[in-house]
Amino acid sequence: MATKKKKEPVILITNDDGITAPGIKNLVEAVKELGKVVVVAPDKPQSGMGHAITIGEPLRMNKVDIFGNIEAWQTSGTPVDCVKLAVDKVLHRKPDICLSGINHGANHSINVIYSGTMSAAMEASIESIPSIGFSLLDFNIEADFTAARFYVYKIVSALLQQKMDKHLLLNVNIPAVNMDQIKGVKICKQAYAKYEEDFDERKDPQGKKYYWLTGKFINFDKGKDTDVWALKNNYVSVVPVQFDLTNYTLKKQLEKNKFLK
Amino acid sequence: MATKKKKEPVILITNDDGITAPGIKNLVEAVKELGKVVVVAPDKPQSGMGHAITIGEPLRMNKVDIFGNIEAWQTSGTPVDCVKLAVDKVLHRKPDICLSGINHGANHSINVIYSGTMSAAMEASIESIPSIGFSLLDFNIEADFTAARFYVYKIVSALLQQKMDKHLLLNVNIPAVNMDQIKGVKICKQAYAKYEEDFDERKDPQGKKYYWLTGKFINFDKGKDTDVWALKNNYVSVVPVQFDLTNYTLKKQLEKNKFLK
Repeated sequence: MATKKKKEPVILITNDDGITAPGIKNLVEAVKELGKVVVVAPDKPQSGMGHAITIGEPLRMNKVDIFGNIEAWQTSGTPVDCVKLAVDKVLHRKPDICLSGINHGANHSINVIYSGTMSAAMEASIESIPSIGFSLLDFNIEADFTAARFYVYKIVSALLQQKMDKHLLLNVNIPAVNMDQIKGVKICKQAYAKYEEDFDERKDPQGKKYYWLTGKFINFDKGKDTDVWALKNNYVSVVPVQFDLTNYTLKKQLEKNKFLK
Repeated sequence: MATKKKKEPVILITNDDGITAPGIKNLVEAVKELGKVVVVAPDKPQSGMGHAITIGEPLRMNKVDIFGNIEAWQTSGTPVDCVKLAVDKVLHRKPDICLSGINHGANHSINVIYSGTMSAAMEASIESIPSIGFSLLDFNIEADFTAARFYVYKIVSALLQQKMDKHLLLNVNIPAVNMDQIKGVKICKQAYAKYEEDFDERKDPQGKKYYWLTGKFINFDKGKDTDVWALKNNYVSVVPVQFDLTNYTLKKQLEKNKFLK
């Protein structure tokens, strides 16, 4: 019995919507039978934080009791801070896998770069912890996580049963449709799709201008191998992600170019 | 004469150390003869902000007069917000090139992911604006920017004379040595080098714990084609960067793998 318990994988869970968001509760519920789950998540929403870290000020971390018998901590930091704190101050070891989410809203295509959910997962990958970010294409606080939970369980349980690359990093998005409409899982590339931004220009009660970010999502990518295509066609999209940002094609071109020498 | 003026390239400058940092002043000085320079930068330091954007609150932007006859605006946003605001509300067009920096401190290897300097440049690249982030390996507020300015001018003037890819994105780091010790410019890949993190655990005057991020930089990459190697050997390192984070090697492996279907 003791031996069996020792082998139980340690599953670190975090998110960017904050520890009280329905998405993280659903993630905990989906995988809690698969190992020892520990939650370390932000104490407030941190959407759009990208890979921000807290350097200039200290962080707070407090134990909270909101997931039944699951150990959980809330921190004043960003999603990336949470992963760092979890490894160094909570677990005192690397977990076997890190799961981030379930995000309320899409993290496909260029969103991977702005997303706190995916940045937390990427931080784990940099730290040699296999990691997955999950997002449901539904911003609604009362979103239905039934299909998301099913696919979270399916993917995590399958991965825990095999040898994972230590830098494994997956960006998983689940379409906001009923379970029986989902056609399956599709391995994809990141679509070149982005927001055409605009700022609402407004005036405050003192008559001073302020600006609020708005934007329209546009898919420039006509490929059928992208996450945007897969989601539009009711597949769960899985994009393998890396943190080596070197553009090797451009590197070769520049090496031939004498102007920089 | 009017024709000549029309052809003058528009150079957008931003940074993450804030608009009053010596680094951005040196960047402006280095390139102001090369085109029409417009500065849009954060009103306070934003190091480590990564690709954070401001969604949940509005932004302020004010014109400032600190660079002589150069048009300059400070904003309450992140470096990425500055690029978005510049295009939409200041320039009302895409600049011909976006320059970010000169950062006080290294942005080689994994720093590219945490860096506000590089995230601003990446935002421009996503927006189809060729872009370069510059960093000097010297945190000192009184750092000597002589060599950095020389290489900034050399690289920007060369690029402005040729047809650039609209997504061109370069991460340029300059070693903190005297000009005559620099051996030249080297096109590199991003080293797998990172911080082994640790948190200082302290107690506040009320006896409550708080945590402060510390870390030791470790280079795991033995290659001689990396930015860390180049900088150590007194080269200016140039890493071409991309925002497609798809891991195509892992994608191929996963496509063969049946477990996710």
